[in-house]
Amino acid sequence: MEFSVEQIALMLGGELVGNKAVKINNIGKIESAIGNEITFFANPKYESFVYSSQAGAILVAKSFEPKHAVNTVLIKVVDPYLAFTKLLEEYHKFLVFSKVGIESPSYQDETAQVGQNSYRGAFSYIGKACKIGNNVKIYPQVYIGDNVTIGDNTVLYAGVKIYANCQIGNGCTLQAGVVIGSDGFGFAPQTDGTYKTIPQLGNVILEDNVDIGANTVIDCATIGSTIIKKGAKLDNLIQVAHNVVIGKNTVIAAQAGISGSSKIGDNSMIGGQVGIVGHIELANKTKIGAQSGVSKSIDKEGLAIQGSPAFDYKQNLKSQVIFKKLPELVKRVEELEEKLINLPATK
Amino acid sequence: MEFSVEQIALMLGGELVGNKAVKINNIGKIESAIGNEITFFANPKYESFVYSSQAGAILVAKSFEPKHAVNTVLIKVVDPYLAFTKLLEEYHKFLVFSKVGIESPSYQDETAQVGQNSYRGAFSYIGKACKIGNNVKIYPQVYIGDNVTIGDNTVLYAGVKIYANCQIGNGCTLQAGVVIGSDGFGFAPQTDGTYKTIPQLGNVILEDNVDIGANTVIDCATIGSTIIKKGAKLDNLIQVAHNVVIGKNTVIAAQAGISGSSKIGDNSMIGGQVGIVGHIELANKTKIGAQSGVSKSIDKEGLAIQGSPAFDYKQNLKSQVIFKKLPELVKRVEELEEKLINLPATK
Amino acid sequence: MEFSVEQIALMLGGELVGNKAVKINNIGKIESAIGNEITFFANPKYESFVYSSQAGAILVAKSFEPKHAVNTVLIKVVDPYLAFTKLLEEYHKFLVFSKVGIESPSYQDETAQVGQNSYRGAFSYIGKACKIGNNVKIYPQVYIGDNVTIGDNTVLYAGVKIYANCQIGNGCTLQAGVVIGSDGFGFAPQTDGTYKTIPQLGNVILEDNVDIGANTVIDCATIGSTIIKKGAKLDNLIQVAHNVVIGKNTVIAAQAGISGSSKIGDNSMIGGQVGIVGHIELANKTKIGAQSGVSKSIDKEGLAIQGSPAFDYKQNLKSQVIFKKLPELVKRVEELEEKLINLPATK
Repeated sequence: MEFSVEQIALMLGGELVGNKAVKINNIGKIESAIGNEITFFANPKYESFVYSSQAGAILVAKSFEPKHAVNTVLIKVVDPYLAFTKLLEEYHKFLVFSKVGIESPSYQDETAQVGQNSYRGAFSYIGKACKIGNNVKIYPQVYIGDNVTIGDNTVLYAGVKIYANCQIGNGCTLQAGVVIGSDGFGFAPQTDGTYKTIPQLGNVILEDNVDIGANTVIDCATIGSTIIKKGAKLDNLIQVAHNVVIGKNTVIAAQAGISGSSKIGDNSMIGGQVGIVGHIELANKTKIGAQSGVSKSIDKEGLAIQGSPAFDYKQNLKSQVIFKKLPELVKRVEELEEKLINLPATK
Repeated sequence: MEFSVEQIALMLGGELVGNKAVKINNIGKIESAIGNEITFFANPKYESFVYSSQAGAILVAKSFEPKHAVNTVLIKVVDPYLAFTKLLEEYHKFLVFSKVGIESPSYQDETAQVGQNSYRGAFSYIGKACKIGNNVKIYPQVYIGDNVTIGDNTVLYAGVKIYANCQIGNGCTLQAGVVIGSDGFGFAPQTDGTYKTIPQLGNVILEDNVDIGANTVIDCATIGSTIIKKGAKLDNLIQVAHNVVIGKNTVIAAQAGISGSSKIGDNSMIGGQVGIVGHIELANKTKIGAQSGVSKSIDKEGLAIQGSPAFDYKQNLKSQVIFKKLPELVKRVEELEEKLINLPATK
Repeated sequence: MEFSVEQIALMLGGELVGNKAVKINNIGKIESAIGNEITFFANPKYESFVYSSQAGAILVAKSFEPKHAVNTVLIKVVDPYLAFTKLLEEYHKFLVFSKVGIESPSYQDETAQVGQNSYRGAFSYIGKACKIGNNVKIYPQVYIGDNVTIGDNTVLYAGVKIYANCQIGNGCTLQAGVVIGSDGFGFAPQTDGTYKTIPQLGNVILEDNVDIGANTVIDCATIGSTIIKKGAKLDNLIQVAHNVVIGKNTVIAAQAGISGSSKIGDNSMIGGQVGIVGHIELANKTKIGAQSGVSKSIDKEGLAIQGSPAFDYKQNLKSQVIFKKLPELVKRVEELEEKLINLPATK
């Protein structure tokens, strides 16, 4: 994972000034970068660092003309900050997709198909009749049950568990310890106080470009599918119950929980530790503040709510402010009562 | 996993009308089922679908006489809906228990005993002196520490981890990523501000027919046992601390947390994201609303509580309604104050 | 794991009275301990048990002279309770560190280095260029990504996952299912409503003597490090987001969540299910009650806060008491209003 400054200049469409053989294998800040690191100069107040920098290379604007000698390679680009961001993205993509090949021992049923350019870490498991696309990265100790399909360019980090019959789209990323397709929590009460298991026969569908955070759990549907739509992003330790549908490009922060059969709209934002009851429907672009408890459907798009139980965000803020001063309010009522006691009787 | 309609009729004690060679490998809805699927007809308003259906077979009532031609096999039973439910249960049981045999590589200490008809997935681990019953299904990447005992007909899905010395009953189901017997959270503060680990030497006991949801954690006792009693059902991502006791047939929803040494009664219902403090005792049949925080013992059976801190459910609802309108209440107090200021002095 | 009473007396610096060949392999309570168990006698009201006890051995005070015959070995020590605690600690340490050797199959890249006296369970994985210290216990199915460093005397229980480039100190304990270094939750909104992944290129640093509970997740930094300082203790199912810093000897209870870039001070105590928003800073010795939501920085040391949103602990208690009786307060306001209606007009 080492690049020459020439390779980097080429990738960014930049012009190189200095020794093109310099090797880079890391990124840094302009005030502290060292010989093997690349950084960028965009904010004029950092200009002095350009002259003192020990970095391997600095991304600078096309128009930048140094006023003093520089000890480092300059790569001139249209927008140094954007170029640096692009560099980070490419580097990250490179890191994520660089693993290729099959480590041993790993397990693959003979009826499973895996596409080209895959990585399969040691102790990974691929069950019967699975269909796995190209450029899929399966880290060590991943479990993929029977009949699972996985699209291209999907990454499953160490220890991901996918139950039988689930479908994972293209370009998805599942962090370590994610569980997809576990049995939904369905138990029918019996007259003797015990519970009987309701069979959970459905699956989970993750559409394309869905990201799932570490140790998050998504239960399979009772019948049919639990669905996470295209582009949704879920953080760590989230609970998604059976038959839930989460809309396109919806973002959910860590430790939120969504109960069975609820439907979340598109482009919504759900805060950390939010709880949503079962069998409700939330309109697109709903925003839910952290730790809120949502107990009712929301028909109107774009509402912001807060609280447990949740209601209008601003109204909740006002009530919270008063809650903090409730003892004061009680005092005011007491004073009123005292005053009225001292009044002459009116009847 | 394909059955002939004749096999299904036999299993349900039904009478077959039509081609007994038809093969079924899935379930469907009466309005959309296709040739390899079975469905049921119970609600008279769906009768027209019986005649148009392309299903492989339909469960119908014994008394049902078609008024038109049907293109599908009919299986006549006493109660079509109950028969369909039974079919789902049998199918589910079949799916869950169909895996048999030992996949390679897997690890079993030579001193461990495993009963008949077991499944042991690749990369599963069975430690020293374990005693594992008949018909136990151990999915890939399961870890079973030393001296663990497991009853008959228990299913451990992929990646379950059971620490040494724990005891799992008959007919239990542990979903993927469950951790049983991790060290309880016990640290003694020292005078220099550091903490010293309190040794956790106990275990966890799951009695019969206990179900545990994905990525839920149950800590071992400091000394003695953390106990989950017969028939209790725990959802995903739940925390059960050291020395907790959970009563028979108690149901706990996802992401709830129970602190050390607390005792939950039998046949209780605990909502999602509930928190329960340590060292308290809750009577049988307690109902706790989602996101509540329980800080005190409850002596009386069958109470319903809500809120953080939790109190009587109905009382809490009333306070919540007023909370929402606190700004209005403040306004009313202000109006009263204004009115009184305008009153003539009374002394 | 069996010791003679002679070995135990030697370890505790005690004086043995009785048969020094007696073997002990467990601990018990004085009222119920049996032949293979050791217990202690410190509280005078339990003296009668000393004479009736069937324990293998009892720790007693140096000054203790039995008034009747005893059927058990006595080990005389300065402080029997402290000696018993020490025994538990030694026994625990022995249990934790007794595993040695490499079980097969396990995976270790040829460029990784592992110190002396290690345990590496079956199906454990050690990536490229890892540096692992002495006396490290790596349980089955642990994943250690490339370039990870681990100090001496650290224990990784079954199924722990550590991403590439993370650094784990000396004397750390990570319970089963812990995830260290998963990608932080960073997504930049695009004009078409989709999100673009922000590359997460940093790592996680656990300093010495850090304990992490089962299934807890600690995300890597975007750039730089997420840091858990020396002696911090984290319970189960906790979420620590990217670039968070947790201070020395800070204790965090189960299911708490800390959002990105927040800094928690030293010697703080954070209750269960607490949520902390991103980009805030909390002073040393802050105490946060369970289920609180912290939305603002705290500058002053040693404050105790509670509530969602959180404020002063005692103030919150007062508000909570009034919240419970809000319907009563409303009634009082109504009564005042009625009284005033009956007053003669004042203008």
